[in-house]
Amino acid sequence: MKKFVNDPQHVVADALVGVEAAHQGRLRVDHRHRVVYRADAPVRGKVALVSGGGSGHEPLHGGYVGPGMLDAACAGEVFTSPTPDQVLAADRLVDGGAGVLHVVKNYTGDVMNFEMAAELAAAEDGPEVATVVTDDDVAVEDSLYTAGRRGVGVTVLLEKIAGAAADEGRDLVAVTDLARRVNDQGRSMGVALTSCTVPAVGTPTFDLPEDQMEVGVGIHGEPGRYRRPMGTAAEIAEQLVAPVTEDLDFTGAPVIVMLGGMGGTPLLELYLMYGQVAPLLAARGIAVARTLVGNHITSLDMAGCSLTLLRADDEMLRLWDAPVDTPGLRWGA
Amino acid sequence: MKKFVNDPQHVVADALVGVEAAHQGRLRVDHRHRVVYRADAPVRGKVALVSGGGSGHEPLHGGYVGPGMLDAACAGEVFTSPTPDQVLAADRLVDGGAGVLHVVKNYTGDVMNFEMAAELAAAEDGPEVATVVTDDDVAVEDSLYTAGRRGVGVTVLLEKIAGAAADEGRDLVAVTDLARRVNDQGRSMGVALTSCTVPAVGTPTFDLPEDQMEVGVGIHGEPGRYRRPMGTAAEIAEQLVAPVTEDLDFTGAPVIVMLGGMGGTPLLELYLMYGQVAPLLAARGIAVARTLVGNHITSLDMAGCSLTLLRADDEMLRLWDAPVDTPGLRWGA
Repeated sequence: MKKFVNDPQHVVADALVGVEAAHQGRLRVDHRHRVVYRADAPVRGKVALVSGGGSGHEPLHGGYVGPGMLDAACAGEVFTSPTPDQVLAADRLVDGGAGVLHVVKNYTGDVMNFEMAAELAAAEDGPEVATVVTDDDVAVEDSLYTAGRRGVGVTVLLEKIAGAAADEGRDLVAVTDLARRVNDQGRSMGVALTSCTVPAVGTPTFDLPEDQMEVGVGIHGEPGRYRRPMGTAAEIAEQLVAPVTEDLDFTGAPVIVMLGGMGGTPLLELYLMYGQVAPLLAARGIAVARTLVGNHITSLDMAGCSLTLLRADDEMLRLWDAPVDTPGLRWGA
Repeated sequence: MKKFVNDPQHVVADALVGVEAAHQGRLRVDHRHRVVYRADAPVRGKVALVSGGGSGHEPLHGGYVGPGMLDAACAGEVFTSPTPDQVLAADRLVDGGAGVLHVVKNYTGDVMNFEMAAELAAAEDGPEVATVVTDDDVAVEDSLYTAGRRGVGVTVLLEKIAGAAADEGRDLVAVTDLARRVNDQGRSMGVALTSCTVPAVGTPTFDLPEDQMEVGVGIHGEPGRYRRPMGTAAEIAEQLVAPVTEDLDFTGAPVIVMLGGMGGTPLLELYLMYGQVAPLLAARGIAVARTLVGNHITSLDMAGCSLTLLRADDEMLRLWDAPVDTPGLRWGA
């Protein structure tokens, strides 16, 4: 294993030191609870968005903390759910009196621990909590870590859109309702060309022969739909576009598309892949309104990519375009 | 080789199709000359910035085209200089009557071809051209592709700062002078943990045993200062900070720091590395004013990172903070 680490058991804690140092004045880190939060939290009267999950998917979630997106993110160990204590600490740090929306990817441990945190908050007269669970991955119905579908790329889009809605002053019910609609209208599918390596393990998570790819892979290296000999970019693009567009009708609405890297694939190849995906969408009558190409939800050093489509509407587009100021997504008015 | 490609000989052309599709309305692509340029070019009366070089360093340079940064970027083949024809085409596309600044990394082919383009422009009564050559890499004095030092990370900072100055309406002499000062006050050093693989070659550019790292590596995989057994993140940080800070005095001025990934290293590790670098800078009395952590100048899928320090001043900081709207760097006022 060749990685930038000191002690492989302390990778997440050590990385959070760097996050704090790199984003002084914008982000703070509660190192005891491993929570990254807005330096200006709590924002009085605003619904707070709290997310988190296993580390290794950066910039998700810590890199999406800031005005216009998340108020806090809980960093679990690599590919390991954060504990209820972490989530409760995050809720308390950022609650501005208007309640907290938990954004949770659909993995058993994440769902359970965020739920337990919400129960603790209720029992202790803590912040009012609502929850949205993302489950956009069309690849598999149940999996190693999941009952139902896995939550992947739509989480990024949801955090942006719901974050902008919270910024506009909408209440917890309205922000939660919007977040659920975003999840309902998003679908994703990924492909791995290589495994990733968890630092504390030191060896690849799974074996993938040099001539094979894993289609429908999960963001922790979970098995996908099938293995197949490495295809051309054109063939792979079709194997991503087909299952996503067969699962939901994306015609007749403005669509936000994310072509995301898994971490180890260079941007040159991601753009090349988007060049393959775009005409396949056009041929299906899908109108792409916004595009995001890059590493936005990753699996450590895995080579691969994923495709996320969101059937948006004018309101979602407007919220997507609203200013955001986070390390991972940042743009002005 | 496991990559997203159709024909390995057409990777750059195919990727440019994706760039155009992903950034409609913002960027255009002259596919014949492989030039990425601002959709609103030429901007009348503004000095235009034109850069370029071999592909494989994305988002450099095409990802830095847009308001506040470059007007155009010429994409050479992977790790291969663009031709004079490409550069001249770019100059003509974006010249708004106030002249063009060529931003050129110090590699023999790049310097020669940009110079030849400037001569062609002069001979054909084309745009007035000035040139800044970046040579911030302290690792080696001469190298495989270079007489003098190699141009690396400072190129990103220079494109941002000089781009903002051009936006303010400064003339070609003033923008060029500022750009040269940025280069003079910037220093970089990189380290590779693995090689990269050029798609058209299909095998790693160099061999690096599993227990070794290449300290001072170039962005095309050129040899560095030495090979050494893999160290801890703390040891590697010292091996980057020491040569950079010994080469120029960074105390007594606001410093912009970039901790950049080489392409194959996950963001988690880059933040971990920055957590190691920051205290080493503080211990040397260096005041970090701005920080950038991420993949900003890469070497395809190489695992590794580089450190760039710029001894800035208040003017450079103000220009750094000015709005920018490119795929690679984007922020509002």
